[in-house]
Amino acid sequence: MNIALPQLPPYPPRPGEHAREKCGVFGVWGSPHPATDTYLGLYALQHRGQESAGIAVSDGRSLARHADMGLVANVFSRSHLDALNRAARERSPIGGAIGHNRYSTTGRSAVDNAQPMISQIALDHGSPAPVAIAHNGNITNAARLRRELEARGHPFHTDSDTEVILHLLADAAARSVDDPLAHALEQLEGAFSLMLLHPDRIEIVRDPHGWRPLVLGTSPSGAPVVASESVALDVVNAELDREIQPGEILTISDDGLASRHFSDPGHPRAHCVFEHVYLASPASKVFGQTVILSRQRTGTRLAQEAPADADLVVPMPDSGRSAAIGYARALGLPFQEAIIPNRYVGRSFIKPTGDQRDAAVRLKLNVVSEIVAGQRIVIVDDSIVRGTTTKAKMTQLRAAGAVEIHLRIASPPITNPCFFGIDFASPEELIARDRSEEQIAKLLGVESVRFLSLDGLVETVTDQDHPASSYCAACFTGHYPIGVDTASARNALAC
Amino acid sequence: MNIALPQLPPYPPRPGEHAREKCGVFGVWGSPHPATDTYLGLYALQHRGQESAGIAVSDGRSLARHADMGLVANVFSRSHLDALNRAARERSPIGGAIGHNRYSTTGRSAVDNAQPMISQIALDHGSPAPVAIAHNGNITNAARLRRELEARGHPFHTDSDTEVILHLLADAAARSVDDPLAHALEQLEGAFSLMLLHPDRIEIVRDPHGWRPLVLGTSPSGAPVVASESVALDVVNAELDREIQPGEILTISDDGLASRHFSDPGHPRAHCVFEHVYLASPASKVFGQTVILSRQRTGTRLAQEAPADADLVVPMPDSGRSAAIGYARALGLPFQEAIIPNRYVGRSFIKPTGDQRDAAVRLKLNVVSEIVAGQRIVIVDDSIVRGTTTKAKMTQLRAAGAVEIHLRIASPPITNPCFFGIDFASPEELIARDRSEEQIAKLLGVESVRFLSLDGLVETVTDQDHPASSYCAACFTGHYPIGVDTASARNALAC
Amino acid sequence: MNIALPQLPPYPPRPGEHAREKCGVFGVWGSPHPATDTYLGLYALQHRGQESAGIAVSDGRSLARHADMGLVANVFSRSHLDALNRAARERSPIGGAIGHNRYSTTGRSAVDNAQPMISQIALDHGSPAPVAIAHNGNITNAARLRRELEARGHPFHTDSDTEVILHLLADAAARSVDDPLAHALEQLEGAFSLMLLHPDRIEIVRDPHGWRPLVLGTSPSGAPVVASESVALDVVNAELDREIQPGEILTISDDGLASRHFSDPGHPRAHCVFEHVYLASPASKVFGQTVILSRQRTGTRLAQEAPADADLVVPMPDSGRSAAIGYARALGLPFQEAIIPNRYVGRSFIKPTGDQRDAAVRLKLNVVSEIVAGQRIVIVDDSIVRGTTTKAKMTQLRAAGAVEIHLRIASPPITNPCFFGIDFASPEELIARDRSEEQIAKLLGVESVRFLSLDGLVETVTDQDHPASSYCAACFTGHYPIGVDTASARNALAC
Amino acid sequence: MNIALPQLPPYPPRPGEHAREKCGVFGVWGSPHPATDTYLGLYALQHRGQESAGIAVSDGRSLARHADMGLVANVFSRSHLDALNRAARERSPIGGAIGHNRYSTTGRSAVDNAQPMISQIALDHGSPAPVAIAHNGNITNAARLRRELEARGHPFHTDSDTEVILHLLADAAARSVDDPLAHALEQLEGAFSLMLLHPDRIEIVRDPHGWRPLVLGTSPSGAPVVASESVALDVVNAELDREIQPGEILTISDDGLASRHFSDPGHPRAHCVFEHVYLASPASKVFGQTVILSRQRTGTRLAQEAPADADLVVPMPDSGRSAAIGYARALGLPFQEAIIPNRYVGRSFIKPTGDQRDAAVRLKLNVVSEIVAGQRIVIVDDSIVRGTTTKAKMTQLRAAGAVEIHLRIASPPITNPCFFGIDFASPEELIARDRSEEQIAKLLGVESVRFLSLDGLVETVTDQDHPASSYCAACFTGHYPIGVDTASARNALAC
Repeated sequence: MNIALPQLPPYPPRPGEHAREKCGVFGVWGSPHPATDTYLGLYALQHRGQESAGIAVSDGRSLARHADMGLVANVFSRSHLDALNRAARERSPIGGAIGHNRYSTTGRSAVDNAQPMISQIALDHGSPAPVAIAHNGNITNAARLRRELEARGHPFHTDSDTEVILHLLADAAARSVDDPLAHALEQLEGAFSLMLLHPDRIEIVRDPHGWRPLVLGTSPSGAPVVASESVALDVVNAELDREIQPGEILTISDDGLASRHFSDPGHPRAHCVFEHVYLASPASKVFGQTVILSRQRTGTRLAQEAPADADLVVPMPDSGRSAAIGYARALGLPFQEAIIPNRYVGRSFIKPTGDQRDAAVRLKLNVVSEIVAGQRIVIVDDSIVRGTTTKAKMTQLRAAGAVEIHLRIASPPITNPCFFGIDFASPEELIARDRSEEQIAKLLGVESVRFLSLDGLVETVTDQDHPASSYCAACFTGHYPIGVDTASARNALAC
Repeated sequence: MNIALPQLPPYPPRPGEHAREKCGVFGVWGSPHPATDTYLGLYALQHRGQESAGIAVSDGRSLARHADMGLVANVFSRSHLDALNRAARERSPIGGAIGHNRYSTTGRSAVDNAQPMISQIALDHGSPAPVAIAHNGNITNAARLRRELEARGHPFHTDSDTEVILHLLADAAARSVDDPLAHALEQLEGAFSLMLLHPDRIEIVRDPHGWRPLVLGTSPSGAPVVASESVALDVVNAELDREIQPGEILTISDDGLASRHFSDPGHPRAHCVFEHVYLASPASKVFGQTVILSRQRTGTRLAQEAPADADLVVPMPDSGRSAAIGYARALGLPFQEAIIPNRYVGRSFIKPTGDQRDAAVRLKLNVVSEIVAGQRIVIVDDSIVRGTTTKAKMTQLRAAGAVEIHLRIASPPITNPCFFGIDFASPEELIARDRSEEQIAKLLGVESVRFLSLDGLVETVTDQDHPASSYCAACFTGHYPIGVDTASARNALAC
Repeated sequence: MNIALPQLPPYPPRPGEHAREKCGVFGVWGSPHPATDTYLGLYALQHRGQESAGIAVSDGRSLARHADMGLVANVFSRSHLDALNRAARERSPIGGAIGHNRYSTTGRSAVDNAQPMISQIALDHGSPAPVAIAHNGNITNAARLRRELEARGHPFHTDSDTEVILHLLADAAARSVDDPLAHALEQLEGAFSLMLLHPDRIEIVRDPHGWRPLVLGTSPSGAPVVASESVALDVVNAELDREIQPGEILTISDDGLASRHFSDPGHPRAHCVFEHVYLASPASKVFGQTVILSRQRTGTRLAQEAPADADLVVPMPDSGRSAAIGYARALGLPFQEAIIPNRYVGRSFIKPTGDQRDAAVRLKLNVVSEIVAGQRIVIVDDSIVRGTTTKAKMTQLRAAGAVEIHLRIASPPITNPCFFGIDFASPEELIARDRSEEQIAKLLGVESVRFLSLDGLVETVTDQDHPASSYCAACFTGHYPIGVDTASARNALAC
Repeated sequence: MNIALPQLPPYPPRPGEHAREKCGVFGVWGSPHPATDTYLGLYALQHRGQESAGIAVSDGRSLARHADMGLVANVFSRSHLDALNRAARERSPIGGAIGHNRYSTTGRSAVDNAQPMISQIALDHGSPAPVAIAHNGNITNAARLRRELEARGHPFHTDSDTEVILHLLADAAARSVDDPLAHALEQLEGAFSLMLLHPDRIEIVRDPHGWRPLVLGTSPSGAPVVASESVALDVVNAELDREIQPGEILTISDDGLASRHFSDPGHPRAHCVFEHVYLASPASKVFGQTVILSRQRTGTRLAQEAPADADLVVPMPDSGRSAAIGYARALGLPFQEAIIPNRYVGRSFIKPTGDQRDAAVRLKLNVVSEIVAGQRIVIVDDSIVRGTTTKAKMTQLRAAGAVEIHLRIASPPITNPCFFGIDFASPEELIARDRSEEQIAKLLGVESVRFLSLDGLVETVTDQDHPASSYCAACFTGHYPIGVDTASARNALAC
């Protein structure tokens, strides 16, 4: 259902309509104000998803939820938080909550798909109980699993692959297997960082590859806190303890923490290297590395691989700033801001048409011509996907008088789709697909374009716990860690 | 989920929180503007449910839907209707739609429960397809069926008993039974008027007892139209053809009408007599009778059974007007309006507290003292449930100077709960439970109170197709047509 | 400014865009919850204006206000009322408030014109103080007065003629005349019932002709209450004391009531007879008469003047019901409801177009064909303006099988525009302009049409305090009590 | 009136409730889509005011307007822009518009004060015509002028000092003076950048001191564009032509540009130096200087005046970044980002209370402890007002392990209130009032605090057209360019 917009998505969705997504999850157990904690955590994770937001709380026996389309700021009012905190404290002075930010897609953007999603399942010895689920990732075999469940008589209410997990869980519970959750998870392929809120506990799950980040911390009061990124632990003043391990199920309850695994500890890993390049907050520690520092190191390395003879190093704000600092410092060139972002341009901006079309680009990023006129400049950005905005920017820089423009990209060329949670353009639209650096430079109208090598990138983010072999860089290489039924993967609505 | 209000319903619902409900359903197939037809039909059926409204359309291959909390007037904008009509015409110049009005309850009022509800089910030879469902009635064994389905691994997403039907249907289809819908329906007990919208057809179902009304008509262009009441056929200028038969499944598609039955034609009937008393629109023809006329006859009959020596016959507006006309005419007494309703008092009225509390009653119904002062008056109303408003009204009439007040009720005393779709108060609150007419008169502070006899009521609504034995009058008699697991019935969210 | 709608009214308004209006005003002084009292009063007066609503309160030193487009139910939330009541009690346990309902017009419907309007004026010995004003009526010389004020250097912020009064008042105060308010009022022509809320008092004004009703009452706690109609006194349980006299200025403050006059007591009167015919609530006492009874008497009189040989007398709901009862009773014919109104059709109803256009009429008023088929019926209504809806209704009655239709109108033919606050159609559109009863009957396709005579109407509403000569019936006669510069009158935005 | 919030501001406002404000204005004449141009311009000026936004357009004869509380993004929908553009093109293929952003204040935040404000004034030879006005600045004698106008019989509808200008203009026109606008402007004291939209022209005014910036440009199609800052010209691709001169009235119409002056060209100037320090966009050219470069020069100069022996130079984002780059480069220290702002924290953020209070600071600006731990850091910011946020930040830096913190502020200590449009805290709250740098360092818990000297600041922003003597630096010096009746100035609602 689509409340705000009169555009009505068809059901079932047309093939190819789905987009890859990244999302953010947060959970806390044993806080006197778990909904406010989660609200703060979701705010800190807002960069991972801006389409919808939701919080579910437990009062020890039942669950309550509020979720809606929009930013955290728009979805929750003070009275929502008060009501959720009150609900959480109904039976005990402290309670638990999980929350979810969903990424915006062009396809089936609907409140029905907002998370956490609540179901009633006969989970505990056949007695029905509610469970809320929040999911970040992409189940690559969701379409096949769904078809099997449908064929066995399960009706589906949403087109999110998160619902598949709930059906698998209910089904496993009905079969009285030993560990229904583990049983359900074993059937999933792809990337998933999950939180399941039960009346008496939270179960936290990370897929065996460890695709998406998921970390555990402890708040000053001792309440365990779990989040997609450490930046969300920081805002509630929680200490980062450790990553949730790939293949781990961590249970948090009034009895403390309990850990079990549903996959072999030796299972190959596949941490998404693009979290470092773009997805994660610079303030987060992801896969063992502080993001702002690893991004700065890509700039240093890029300076070695692809130095430029220029007057100024100018970052593309805000994404290229850290790499630009590293690049400038390594070459002893002046680091200079010259492109000013407008902080107010968001999704409610009404794009002009016709002869005013360029205005949107100028409004979003304003080039200061007094700085670039007559200069040879290096522009540093973190990555290029389709290159459309980059091209508009290069044109503006040239119009502002730059005599030489050298574009430096702090990651390798993106040449392949991601099936594990990132919504790149379709392969044909990727600017670096089937084009050399020279061809791209010509296309963008600049003197030179150079990308960081894959080795260069990976070296900036490895440590002994996260060796080069533990990373997935399929978007750069096309070497996917698992076989993917691409048709099926494309057809599922991931998060 | 509750978007507008920060009151968050717990999940699962607390025991006893559910209320009985009446709702309205409408469907059309083969119209160039099926969404607008349905919009008009839902407007005409608004008296059957004011909590939420929704419309689903088929474009021949997929479905689209818009539903939300609120009156039809608030849920649909012109752009919603345009989008739905466009969707319906995507593949053909004509399309189909179903719609639903939901009754307001105090318990779990949530947009998740709004109908039509859409699911994807592997219905046709194992290939998944969407189906939208709209339901008026109350499945009395829903809680038991749900527990069984849960135990077999089905997760539930709402707390509406309509979802049970979808699971039964999916389950039956998976078992490859001959007629999965009939198979599912055979398991249901209670009252149900259903519409199932598939991409290529609508299936219309009425329970074997024929509890709720459901009629078939034909629009001027030949499109079949189905609705809870004939008043909804009138607004789209459709001719009333016939009732959907108890136990019938009627399929409407581009191939025309096809009828089958899932129950024995000789199955005992149980038409709700309270549809005549209060639920249905006076403009409708229900169970073969024009409602305004059957109500007028109750007044005539009441005049015979319980005449009063008085100066004026005053209707309680708007519910008692027809009976009052019949009563006054039969006794040759002047029919006189003297209580003026305020047409603007609705659910957004902010009830005053403390010494202003009476203001709400005075605002809602204003007594004209110049008319009643010094008079002996008969007040005629259709029914009394708890009697609270009636008492306030009687006090106001007395304060306005009425010297004698004779209250005449055009139906028998309500003494028992309904399990088939009407939300009466709890039995203890019913004013007529365990009280004689004299005791009620004393309680209300009036000279006399008289109710219509059950025979008197039933005689006004019988014809050869609907004999006295075909009516359910359990609310008056306590004789329920089917055994009801009252605990289970009370726990399900009906519609 | 128009917040909700993207239709932007031009400023200044185009000629001829304005519509005549009726509005409702309410005031109370010395209540512990004056905002709630006013809220209730405005609810009771909602029939006088549905475009916007507003309440202003005084705390003894300053004023606070909330107003917006929409019905009272939509404009005020509980927190608005709480905030206003709190503001009113800031310096004293009791406070004062005034409120206003504005009539909907097609022209300049804007929140800037919502009332009460607040200004700061150097009223009391040169010291600026706030004043809020609420106005029901139409100042016929407003355009001229405004031009004069503009020529003298006054800027205008709205296009409401209420603003003219504020400027006249400020101007009079600056000239240090004895009684600035009286001085300002003496310059006004036309109809005006005014309330001016000052920090320490309310001043209530009625124009010398007494065009619109305005009554004074006393609440149980002794607080004086003033309202357009007595029905608003009833809801706050206030006793009706008297009408505000034409030409009176009544001051209500902590010192009680004080009355003065700004016009000669012998000034000719011009009570609007159409208040009895249609505008006022049936529950009100207006110009000394209970409206429901005077309307019933018009039916009695109409039966004498224009009897019909018929089987049934059917009211046009709800406007013709009282007259129909009087008519039927006088002739001994059966009074019979046969046209069922839909209570949910309001201004947010989306009118269908094309072949569905008739649906709107059928939805709004549904004819029960079982009643009218084969019958000779008399339809009674209060008045006809353009006749468009009436014609659609007559067509529907004929289609339902009525063999004879006799239309009886309980007021004379409307043939002239009103310049004193009622928005009739333009003269050319009035069905009775330049048409005989026979011509109208032919146009409507009915057997006969008869109107009540003017004498007949006036006799139903006269008493010794309100003789026939005290009424304005210009809409029926064209004899306007005062000379009207029609161009100017048409150009002002009245209320 | 306050639509969204139930907090009702009293009228008149309580003394001392008003806050100083900065705002943004934009105007264009002769564009085919003047509303869209203005929308883009207001977006680019959003940093100057976030409380309300509005656009007025002319169609050659009348004006239309839309304004509301909120950001430009929330106030305007596509249909608003379409309606305004359509209105502007009603009589000609091109039209004119003006727009306004209002700064948020804690006091009387109300839609009634939203601009542009429209009035009808008998301006042109006594014939009334509409005029819309948009104002950036603060009229310091507004309260006195208002009292005089009130005493002469002018009612006031808002509490904005912009309304005073409209009354003066109307009054001057009524007196038939030669140039009513010039006559009105001569009476104003203080800061004002004004736009007056008439049906046939825009008049642009800048006060004789030239307090606030106001620039003229030309769009590619030749349409003249005027804006508070050049960044708004950039987005519509207009070339910057020149500043509007202090004391100039520039008229833009279909006849082109015409300039006149209402003050002596030799009138002393008083450009607000704080525009360079903080108010203006880094991308703008203000008072002849590109802001990002003048800010960078303050850093260079600050390095000379107050070098620090440290490991890293860390900017306070985003305000201190330019100065930090200049500072680091001058001293050869590494420039290092280490404080990460959350881009989503805005005014709808719900501030936690109690033990979660610090979360708001951590959420807004996150310190990366891996960077600062064990380091001696210089923090560079543009200015300090009350120091509350700065103190919280210093505490966080210390907690993150910084061993030395040297705070460098790229402007002098703020010690005095501004009466010309900036809302500093009350003087007692200013951290630098009556405190030495050492005392401030102790208060903030850092090793050292150093401010830029006033000479140092002024030298970065002077050129031959804008010598040091042409700047107002009263907030740093207390030397106000004009005598200010501070009581009066404080009481007016400026913009």
